[in-house]
Amino acid sequence: MLIIKKIKISYTEIIVFGTLVIILSGALLLSLPISSKSGIVTPFIDSLFTSASAFCVTGLIAYDTFTHWSLFGQLIILLLIQIGGLGFMTVITLFSMFLRRKIGLKERRLLMESANTLKIGGIVMLVKKIIIGTFLFESMGALILTLNFYPEMGFKEGLFYGIFHSVSAFCNAGFDLMGKYGQFSSLTAYSNNFVVNATVMTLIVSGGIGFVVWDDIISSHACFRKLQLHTKIVLVTTTALILASSLLFFVIEADHSMADMSMGERMLASVFQSVTPRTAGFNTINMNEMSEGGNLLTIILMIIGGSPGSTAGGIKTTTFITLLAGAWASAGQSSDISIFKRRLETDTLKKASAITVIYMSIALIAIILISTIQEFPLKEIMFEVFSALGTVGLSLGITPSLNALSKIIIALLMYGGKVGVLSIAAVVAEKKEPALLSRPHEKIIIG
Amino acid sequence: MLIIKKIKISYTEIIVFGTLVIILSGALLLSLPISSKSGIVTPFIDSLFTSASAFCVTGLIAYDTFTHWSLFGQLIILLLIQIGGLGFMTVITLFSMFLRRKIGLKERRLLMESANTLKIGGIVMLVKKIIIGTFLFESMGALILTLNFYPEMGFKEGLFYGIFHSVSAFCNAGFDLMGKYGQFSSLTAYSNNFVVNATVMTLIVSGGIGFVVWDDIISSHACFRKLQLHTKIVLVTTTALILASSLLFFVIEADHSMADMSMGERMLASVFQSVTPRTAGFNTINMNEMSEGGNLLTIILMIIGGSPGSTAGGIKTTTFITLLAGAWASAGQSSDISIFKRRLETDTLKKASAITVIYMSIALIAIILISTIQEFPLKEIMFEVFSALGTVGLSLGITPSLNALSKIIIALLMYGGKVGVLSIAAVVAEKKEPALLSRPHEKIIIG
Ligand SMILES: [K+]
Ligand SMILES: [K+]
Repeated sequence: MLIIKKIKISYTEIIVFGTLVIILSGALLLSLPISSKSGIVTPFIDSLFTSASAFCVTGLIAYDTFTHWSLFGQLIILLLIQIGGLGFMTVITLFSMFLRRKIGLKERRLLMESANTLKIGGIVMLVKKIIIGTFLFESMGALILTLNFYPEMGFKEGLFYGIFHSVSAFCNAGFDLMGKYGQFSSLTAYSNNFVVNATVMTLIVSGGIGFVVWDDIISSHACFRKLQLHTKIVLVTTTALILASSLLFFVIEADHSMADMSMGERMLASVFQSVTPRTAGFNTINMNEMSEGGNLLTIILMIIGGSPGSTAGGIKTTTFITLLAGAWASAGQSSDISIFKRRLETDTLKKASAITVIYMSIALIAIILISTIQEFPLKEIMFEVFSALGTVGLSLGITPSLNALSKIIIALLMYGGKVGVLSIAAVVAEKKEPALLSRPHEKIIIG
Repeated sequence: MLIIKKIKISYTEIIVFGTLVIILSGALLLSLPISSKSGIVTPFIDSLFTSASAFCVTGLIAYDTFTHWSLFGQLIILLLIQIGGLGFMTVITLFSMFLRRKIGLKERRLLMESANTLKIGGIVMLVKKIIIGTFLFESMGALILTLNFYPEMGFKEGLFYGIFHSVSAFCNAGFDLMGKYGQFSSLTAYSNNFVVNATVMTLIVSGGIGFVVWDDIISSHACFRKLQLHTKIVLVTTTALILASSLLFFVIEADHSMADMSMGERMLASVFQSVTPRTAGFNTINMNEMSEGGNLLTIILMIIGGSPGSTAGGIKTTTFITLLAGAWASAGQSSDISIFKRRLETDTLKKASAITVIYMSIALIAIILISTIQEFPLKEIMFEVFSALGTVGLSLGITPSLNALSKIIIALLMYGGKVGVLSIAAVVAEKKEPALLSRPHEKIIIG
């Protein structure tokens, strides 16, 4: 027990410092004149913001990616996205494998934590699967997108756009090069292109359900009954969330952001807007034309986020379902929390509750801070903060107007959302001595 | 076990139907021409809204209480507030005692649930204490307020104003008769009157910490170490929340709602604004002049609310602290949740999490519904919904503009906030068969 605890601490340290080193390196490179289109030195606070946003696969941008950055700068951003999407430890392992180094027990334990997997054995195998799977998904996506961009952009630009947007979508990064159609326009120019929409959505969802789920689907030959409980929850929750929120967006946005759309385009946009807040960050409709209810629904989806061990952020689907199942059990006076006829372990609800409480506390403190520093409307700040902490990247447009202090807060939120709020809290929380069994317990009144 | 369950169901039924009967009776009386100042019949939807708001001690009003209602109407409102503040079962017991009826075992069990107390014995004694305590607090408050209003209003009006505002404050109702200084002005006319502020705040806090706490303070002779864990948590949390949010309001509102105030007035207003959202509903500053951060802080305080077994609403202080302590324990990898060197029972966190999840789900659904029905800004709707569900009564001013459907939603929220969201959920949730021990358990990944 004690040994694992010790490793956990150093694991946290490795992630915290390793991540910082990569973000700072990226920021330095992006500050260079070679990284900007106009050849100027980008202010460090802005290149730091961009580097953090790329590595944390968030996609909030103070500069339009197409307009400001040179091809070199865009490549740096793409590399940061890919490293961030794979995960820090996965990349380290990849290097170790290239250098034919033996991967030790401690490294395997770290990897297990990093990949957030359930199985202790076969962790290096899982890393290999992650890398192969990522390559397969991204190259398939790049191929389809390139074929789509090719007639308009020619081969070279079309290929680059295909690769960039495929990687950005699969890693749930939300960065785009569509500034050529208008700054910060995201995918609005393609809102009625079915192939681009379908490809990007498939990449987002595939990246967002996590490799543990893919691994289980493949090894159980896609037979639902044979799947692990975790896989079932992720698949059912993801499907239910997309269907329910698509329907809601379709109804709510009829007289707002989707007022001028044909029925088909409206259906496509509704599905896209229910997929992208968890936590991709592309948009095919103008976020500022969205209704108030649509904005709130987007915020809720941003908080729920993707699934554990994936490229997505948020409190995660399993956390969300555990909280709902716990509430349902309490309401029915049941002592066990059951999902799909399986009981959850006792500590599952405790961890789910902890993550949500820490997540919401960090967000609320950040919102109050930014609203005190700058005079933005509350809704815009809430949207920006939940977007950053959930590594989503959607914005109601205030990102370029953030001052240095606000940019640092947003960058810290992206960092916290990527590393995990519980890891951050573990660094500041006092380490408890194990087994204080002598402490008497006492009842209090709740609610 | 089964007998208790049976009683629990009928307890919920008694509360649900009994409460409805009182609210509907109040609505009928308020609709009568005699209840309005102009002698007209008040539309039933509006008198229903007012009756629900008074009985649920919320204080959201579509009509200004002073301007619209006659003395008769105001007395009906006062009576509804007093019944709602004491609690349905307490009032029933009071009648039984007057009629010298014996109070049976079943009734005692119901009372225990209703008073939300920890002790099984001495429940009728507690009800007596509740009634005597309420009378003492309210008459002391009425005396001080009357002395303050007397020079300006004369004896008769001063006494009525003293009683009305003392009852409204102690019951955390938030209704006022200050429309004579301007419609919907609440206590803004008294923002620099120290005695009125201090009296109203003392009444709010005294009513909001709950009779179980008062009982424990008295029986332990106010010795902190001898207090029950519940009492300690309520007292420390209440104090900490008031101090922290006073300081925050003082800083945040300096350039906003408190810009024209003297230092002393600003300090007084800061403390008042940190006391009133939990869940009194008076205001001494213009809520519409508040900063965005101040609005969010108010919403957070409205969600936390008062303490269990009190006249206040919200998820309650003990729920809030249990969630924080649970998060702290998880971050420190501790298996037990401890507060003040006592371990909490295992089910405490489960119940706290359930209440919060159901509470937030109801609120978010209501916000999306109202934003779809009517075109208000998201912040105004969020404020109104959390104010209704928390039985707070603060508003950014949209209450009179709500249409019939929105008024019904808000009335249902007040009702749900008063009866308790877990009781509401228990009605709709499936009753679980006890002990499904055979169900296998399985691990899932959280966060
Ligand atoms: K993203
Ligand atoms: K109230």
